Amino acid sequence: MEDKEQTSLGSRPMVGGEGPQSYAQNSSIQKKVVEDTKELIHVAIIEKLGLQYITNSGSSNSTFRIADLGCSVGPNTFFAVQNIIDAIELKYHKTYKGNKINPEFQVFFNDHADNDFNTLFKLLPPSRNYFTNAVPGSFHGRLFPKSSLHFVHSSCSLHWLSKVPKEVVDSKSPAWNKGSIICTGLVKEVLDAYSNQFNNDMESYLTARAQEIVGGGLMVLIFPVLPDGIPMAQTSTGKAMELLYSCLNDLAILGLVKQEKVDSFNIPFYFPNAEEMVRIVERNGYFIVEKIQEYLSKSPVISKDVQFLITSHLRAATEGIIKEHFGLGIVEELFNYFQKKLTDDDHTFTKEYTPEIEYLFIVLKRKAFDR
Amino acid sequence: MEDKEQTSLGSRPMVGGEGPQSYAQNSSIQKKVVEDTKELIHVAIIEKLGLQYITNSGSSNSTFRIADLGCSVGPNTFFAVQNIIDAIELKYHKTYKGNKINPEFQVFFNDHADNDFNTLFKLLPPSRNYFTNAVPGSFHGRLFPKSSLHFVHSSCSLHWLSKVPKEVVDSKSPAWNKGSIICTGLVKEVLDAYSNQFNNDMESYLTARAQEIVGGGLMVLIFPVLPDGIPMAQTSTGKAMELLYSCLNDLAILGLVKQEKVDSFNIPFYFPNAEEMVRIVERNGYFIVEKIQEYLSKSPVISKDVQFLITSHLRAATEGIIKEHFGLGIVEELFNYFQKKLTDDDHTFTKEYTPEIEYLFIVLKRKAFDR
Repeated sequence: MEDKEQTSLGSRPMVGGEGPQSYAQNSSIQKKVVEDTKELIHVAIIEKLGLQYITNSGSSNSTFRIADLGCSVGPNTFFAVQNIIDAIELKYHKTYKGNKINPEFQVFFNDHADNDFNTLFKLLPPSRNYFTNAVPGSFHGRLFPKSSLHFVHSSCSLHWLSKVPKEVVDSKSPAWNKGSIICTGLVKEVLDAYSNQFNNDMESYLTARAQEIVGGGLMVLIFPVLPDGIPMAQTSTGKAMELLYSCLNDLAILGLVKQEKVDSFNIPFYFPNAEEMVRIVERNGYFIVEKIQEYLSKSPVISKDVQFLITSHLRAATEGIIKEHFGLGIVEELFNYFQKKLTDDDHTFTKEYTPEIEYLFIVLKRKAFDR
Repeated sequence: MEDKEQTSLGSRPMVGGEGPQSYAQNSSIQKKVVEDTKELIHVAIIEKLGLQYITNSGSSNSTFRIADLGCSVGPNTFFAVQNIIDAIELKYHKTYKGNKINPEFQVFFNDHADNDFNTLFKLLPPSRNYFTNAVPGSFHGRLFPKSSLHFVHSSCSLHWLSKVPKEVVDSKSPAWNKGSIICTGLVKEVLDAYSNQFNNDMESYLTARAQEIVGGGLMVLIFPVLPDGIPMAQTSTGKAMELLYSCLNDLAILGLVKQEKVDSFNIPFYFPNAEEMVRIVERNGYFIVEKIQEYLSKSPVISKDVQFLITSHLRAATEGIIKEHFGLGIVEELFNYFQKKLTDDDHTFTKEYTPEIEYLFIVLKRKAFDR
């Protein structure tokens, strides 16, 4: 999985296939993020990529290896990858003027092993100019051989944690998160538990990538962050999750799910802020921050028209984790109920009271190391 | 697809998943081939693999890249790959005595894009010592960057042609194959058409691999060949196919499929003989034949006990191609009917009259080239 959701969650895969509930049909928000960052990535490659780090870059015998980590099933990952390749080709063209030297591109689409890679392969652009690979596994661990990648991209994936911090579902812990299914940011102990998990996950992620990326190679990370001083509870993502929680509670009262099941359910995602992310990168030590930029992805105004969008996106992203925890039977009922509550509720998502999610765009360069 | 069948056929994927009709559950014949060739591959690696061709092979920073072409969904491909890795590790151990230098292994599982890679990933051995990749696409074309592979394995796949030769389904051609769905070897024009297609396909295959394999890299190919002087029609594979054809004809008489559909159906596979294969490799020119060996894979005696095996293997391999040509509706009926005919027929497959299929084991080394 490693989803791509504004209103999202889940450590189980996005909904596969191409049906009406699928991620492939319900990832317009993530597509927007890809479009928003297109120019930023282009500029980063032109300005920051050093071709001298690519073996044989000046000959016709060089391979440029790109990984998209947390790719889901497409099609967004294909747009992102093509944008990266177009920029690299332009960089080659500028560097080796007139020599018509282009590398061969090898692209690695990574996501959890239970991602629907069959659909990814079905949706592949037929006329692509790269060699295609799917790489199954968690990006919190090693996925590639040493010094084998030149460019890593990960969009809307890193806010997903490797697991729910165990304290938050432990009724004996001060960090027990009874009364919520997310890190609202309103309870310090819960916030600390989630933050620790995010820090540990990022440290694992960066250390794995440090092995895999060549010295001088670039990594572009894009993920949602909290605006300054705004807790998760006040964001549209937070509000959608709280609404989902209230639906689960109602279903528990109706006897359709067990209350203990609801109490032990947390969704393992966390939005850091920009400073926290920079501290993590600096403490890790393997990468230089080449560029960091917060930007607002203009999300659609929340109106009746987009209520369906909220529900469908939320469902595409969370169905897997909900099935895993509660069983298959609840899913249809839950999201119908969610849709109804959303329609009945005119106030929760009004624009004035819902800060927009910001995204962090960060370009890291692997420090050159001894070979 | 690129199947792995003794009694087999089809240019559509093997049956996916892990159900009773799946390739994963119906590939014991291919498993036997993997077991039979284990020792041969081991010896080939110890005797023929030159570690000097591997970049940084003497340091701890080297990557050894292995591709299995026509892998299907597992588990046979995992046994084959592990065997290769074990032998390479032994070779490293012998070469760099006591230095405990081992490369990192990167494995590429290739098959057609409509292969069930989700099942492949589900069946992956949890404790594997290699980085995993799936590569979708036809191995008759390029799949990997230049000089990026050190070892290529392909077992029971190369006898599948990229397409049915067009002459054999053209009623105006002297090579029209009316009255059969395979290359029986009994009609010269049909045999020539199939042989030409195989030659063209192998030329494409070898030329693509020549680009992808480093100078000195090895390629092990294993596929069924015809025993000297025996036409396909006399082999168990040929006989099973002829029986399938008679079932299709019967269904046409019953009006369940159209006769034209049966007449335009051919299964694109071809068993060469060893000399033919050597001629193709020599004409291509990029590889040296390091070793060639024909061997008999003792197939189970055909008895009532294994009639189910024949049907289930045949079905796992051909269901895709039959669905594609005739539509989904016919499959269940056809194989029930096939099973019944097989049970009623005590003579066709008696051991005395059915020559066993031979396999060709061939080790090719990529000629060293200028860099």
